[in-house]
Amino acid sequence: MRRYHPVDFTRVSLTGPFWSERLETVLTRTVPSQYRKLDESGILESLDLKDPPPPLRIPRNASGFTTQYFWDSDLGKWIEAAGYALRHRRDPAVEAQVDAIVDKLEAAQMDDGYLNLWYQGHEIENRWTNLRDRHELYNAGHLLEGAIAYFQATGRRKFLDVMERYIEHIRTTFGPNEGQKRGYPGHQEIELALVKLYHLTGERKHLDLATYFINERGRQPHYFDQEAVARGDDPTKYHFYNSGNYEYSQSHRPVREQDKVVGHAVRAFYMYAAMADLAADLDDDSLRHACEVLWKDVTTTRMYVTGGFGPSASNEGFTTDYDLPNDTAYCETCASVAMVFWAQRMLNIELDGQYAEILEQALYNGTLSGLSRDGELYFYENKLESDGSHRRWPWHPCPCCTMNVSRLVASVGGYFYSVGGDSIAVNLYGGNSAELDMGGRKIRIDEQSTYPWSGSIRITVHPDGHGPFALKLRIPDWAARDAVAVLNGNPVDVPGQTESGYLVIHRDWLDGDTIQLELPMKARRIYANPKVRMDRHRVALARGPLVYCAEQADNPTPVPDLILPRDAVVADKPRDDLFDGIVTLTAPAQTIAARDWGNDLYRTTPPEVSQTTLTAIPYFLWANREPGTMQVWIRES
Amino acid sequence: MRRYHPVDFTRVSLTGPFWSERLETVLTRTVPSQYRKLDESGILESLDLKDPPPPLRIPRNASGFTTQYFWDSDLGKWIEAAGYALRHRRDPAVEAQVDAIVDKLEAAQMDDGYLNLWYQGHEIENRWTNLRDRHELYNAGHLLEGAIAYFQATGRRKFLDVMERYIEHIRTTFGPNEGQKRGYPGHQEIELALVKLYHLTGERKHLDLATYFINERGRQPHYFDQEAVARGDDPTKYHFYNSGNYEYSQSHRPVREQDKVVGHAVRAFYMYAAMADLAADLDDDSLRHACEVLWKDVTTTRMYVTGGFGPSASNEGFTTDYDLPNDTAYCETCASVAMVFWAQRMLNIELDGQYAEILEQALYNGTLSGLSRDGELYFYENKLESDGSHRRWPWHPCPCCTMNVSRLVASVGGYFYSVGGDSIAVNLYGGNSAELDMGGRKIRIDEQSTYPWSGSIRITVHPDGHGPFALKLRIPDWAARDAVAVLNGNPVDVPGQTESGYLVIHRDWLDGDTIQLELPMKARRIYANPKVRMDRHRVALARGPLVYCAEQADNPTPVPDLILPRDAVVADKPRDDLFDGIVTLTAPAQTIAARDWGNDLYRTTPPEVSQTTLTAIPYFLWANREPGTMQVWIRES
Repeated sequence: MRRYHPVDFTRVSLTGPFWSERLETVLTRTVPSQYRKLDESGILESLDLKDPPPPLRIPRNASGFTTQYFWDSDLGKWIEAAGYALRHRRDPAVEAQVDAIVDKLEAAQMDDGYLNLWYQGHEIENRWTNLRDRHELYNAGHLLEGAIAYFQATGRRKFLDVMERYIEHIRTTFGPNEGQKRGYPGHQEIELALVKLYHLTGERKHLDLATYFINERGRQPHYFDQEAVARGDDPTKYHFYNSGNYEYSQSHRPVREQDKVVGHAVRAFYMYAAMADLAADLDDDSLRHACEVLWKDVTTTRMYVTGGFGPSASNEGFTTDYDLPNDTAYCETCASVAMVFWAQRMLNIELDGQYAEILEQALYNGTLSGLSRDGELYFYENKLESDGSHRRWPWHPCPCCTMNVSRLVASVGGYFYSVGGDSIAVNLYGGNSAELDMGGRKIRIDEQSTYPWSGSIRITVHPDGHGPFALKLRIPDWAARDAVAVLNGNPVDVPGQTESGYLVIHRDWLDGDTIQLELPMKARRIYANPKVRMDRHRVALARGPLVYCAEQADNPTPVPDLILPRDAVVADKPRDDLFDGIVTLTAPAQTIAARDWGNDLYRTTPPEVSQTTLTAIPYFLWANREPGTMQVWIRES
Repeated sequence: MRRYHPVDFTRVSLTGPFWSERLETVLTRTVPSQYRKLDESGILESLDLKDPPPPLRIPRNASGFTTQYFWDSDLGKWIEAAGYALRHRRDPAVEAQVDAIVDKLEAAQMDDGYLNLWYQGHEIENRWTNLRDRHELYNAGHLLEGAIAYFQATGRRKFLDVMERYIEHIRTTFGPNEGQKRGYPGHQEIELALVKLYHLTGERKHLDLATYFINERGRQPHYFDQEAVARGDDPTKYHFYNSGNYEYSQSHRPVREQDKVVGHAVRAFYMYAAMADLAADLDDDSLRHACEVLWKDVTTTRMYVTGGFGPSASNEGFTTDYDLPNDTAYCETCASVAMVFWAQRMLNIELDGQYAEILEQALYNGTLSGLSRDGELYFYENKLESDGSHRRWPWHPCPCCTMNVSRLVASVGGYFYSVGGDSIAVNLYGGNSAELDMGGRKIRIDEQSTYPWSGSIRITVHPDGHGPFALKLRIPDWAARDAVAVLNGNPVDVPGQTESGYLVIHRDWLDGDTIQLELPMKARRIYANPKVRMDRHRVALARGPLVYCAEQADNPTPVPDLILPRDAVVADKPRDDLFDGIVTLTAPAQTIAARDWGNDLYRTTPPEVSQTTLTAIPYFLWANREPGTMQVWIRES
């Protein structure tokens, strides 16, 4: 049922101002600076196995846990990001950095294929004894994704060969057969990496191993119980076993029986992404149905308006329906990135605008906010309200988010188009030039636009010859009522030709055919379901795919004192002086005259309000200037 | 500077419906049932010292602490409440219960006068080694107050003799002289008990001991440090030493240097009450000044509208200015009771309506809410918002609040009048007949009113002869603009004759002179300083001294969904069918149609509102019916 295939980012040249700026920043600043951080933080040093091992750089926490267990994943993810960067522009210096890492990984690899720097450096006798907590399979997955990306960038296979040997070891070790461990990852990730390897090599065994991990998950007797007993541990003493089950790692029941999005958000979304991949490649309706149920659950009960996920720091994940606190929102950057992965895979199964809509929401807001304007500071947690104390970090003891955002931005062109049968779907907008392959036909598409700053999109089609096909242009929900399209000067019946959120134009396209699409981009107010108590009597502002926030730097009165009257006109205000040119939103607003109240604690007259102007900037840009208060959800009167 | 003396409650016969009902409930149900609870909970059994002691009834907490340390205080407080009850009506059965307790206390008392059932029963070798935590002096104070009350009720001195011996032991043990410990209570209380003993006996040494405790408090080197080191403990490991000082017990600095109300709320207010007592009896301006500074601090930054105090459960006390969360409000009943004590003592120093105003606010709301309508269930915590799960307890592992409310209600008549020089001050209203002694003159005052249900007050004066004096009638803040008074049919110039919140009528009163005072009692809206973020965009309703709340039982739509328009008329609605007759408040209101919203998590149209009616009842009466949500602070539009 894989109906659509994404068009690889190497075929999509981003020319619009929004993404070319972000991409350049990531390529020229983020990826190189991340290598330096890998060095400074000791992660590169871990490649040199020493006896005795050096002291821990990241002290163990109260549970005895150190994030050094998954340093391998950081190596893999950086190589993946660097690989994507190299596909934009080869760079011998960067390749030398990667090759040096790969040489050490190859040297470290054990004869039986095993490769895990923590265990090999510290406690090899304990390998494969704690899948629940120790991230061995998660590490393997990220290394594999790095190896694939680096092979695709350079054609050099050494890392891929190393990883294929390791995967062979894993395939031998885990499975349902006599003498195998019936284990699966405590932190899902390897499943989607294996699907990538299957797509690269065409070798079915990789798909089968991913399928085994997904199908085995959550079965009884529970592997994590058995594994713990085998280690001499009491499974019920597990730190994340508070709820008396394994919801934390989505292994509380078989995946097809899961109908609530629970537990650790990144684990959840990596798993759902793999489930969607397998549903497509195996034509598995039960997996697809589970994905659809979970999709509906999270998007109707457990999603922040910023496309952030997981309110709670304690489990880095989900709590209860409609529990979406703003000032304590966890909203790990990785969770938004993982949602982009999952949404894209859902879109492969069914070209439905709802998937692209959430993909775009998570990408432009919850993901991009994870990276500073200068490309070298990171949010791990993406709160929706702050007193100004929440700031981006130069690095993190658990740097997973840093390279998740860089690998995504470095390959963001890959989310713009997908192709299926005789259809080309345009999922994201922004100036670009794409060379598409549609069942052997070559079709170039040029898009001129400054999206998301403007909703004016001019698409010119250059097919390689004759023959009809459908161009499917996503009409975002926020533009569904007012979108206008003109084909070679003739109006298109947008409502009449829109199916599942895509304007379908099926015709025998001629070279130079041009569609002018106007997605009216004006400020809109967003209200939350009143069951989200934190957002009652509040409003969020958005324009196009961007969610906005009020940050103190732009507002003359305290942000928490702002009140936006319901009938106030919220206007666009382009500001060339801010962040190299953005569109801000402004509105006449009120402010509680808190300072004029006096000393009384209580009185019978309400606080006075005075007139002020509210200015809002795109949420992803906040905290790039002097520290100050910030709110996405603004009091409305 | 003690300008006014309260008129003892035995001289004030309460005839109005409000207080006669509460008083009867406390006398006939609360005090007798509390004796049964003392029995069931093991507190009476603790009077029989056994070797080995029986197992703990109240398990030690993580810090090794058990509330059994202060069971003596519960005995003392119950005897105090029973003593007050006996002054209303003698009762041989109750007296036999008290006498039996007193006999056991006398039998237990050590030769040197020491009397503490915990230490004598468990670890006598450790007595007086941990004033910081173990409540020995607090227990002694409550036993002393019980002994005084019982002596005043019955004329029998055995308990008083026991306690005078114990106080003599304490006086010998503590003090600034060679061989004495320079200690003072970890939980203040004995100070105000000693002042009572001074007033009873006229013996200056009791005032001096109270003065010593107050003056010694917070001096360096710190006694609690020295005492801990002497025990072999690390003083900095103290559980309540988080802030690096002794704010928890208001011993972080000498009392005269304290200018912020901090720490454990009950400790604080008992201490401030004693400071006000000493300021009056010693004519100590520095103590008075400290009290005034602390009064202003708490009433302008740290007081709930219900006259509740102390938002935090972790220290049973204060946090930061304007931090007044509603759903997690701690507001221990004892803290409101202690505020009544402090406020009355401030009023003795200076007859200023602000003190009576807060006294009344704490009495009618934060205190009375601590006791159920039937007189046998108790709130320890008086939250201002609840999802319905917060209910009164039949008893508590720390039953301090139960007998604090019964001893206060049993003696509430003592807060109505005070006399100073040639003035009689009427501080509280409610039908009563009082026999006052003003410097030897006997003056009877009859008040007819159903206050607080009505603000119509008819006072008739019956002096014993001729000679001018002043009658000072408190004009509450909420009535200051509209109060009307008529003396023998002639209007009184209320604004012109009001001083510091009291309408002063100085004349040669004749038998039968009558004042009709009308305090317009209509619903009023109360707003909090916007610095109290939790109450922004919310309104509280009050009528007379009563703060109201919306409870689910009276409201057809969910209380959290209610919105009260700013211009909605809030009307009185007497309800004879509720609680034997109360005045409710009703208003046309709106409700968020949360159930009609549908499944969307976000959308661009706001939630609809529909019309409903809001009904509010007096806050102190909530949680006497089926469990349901409750809010004092209601959303206002």
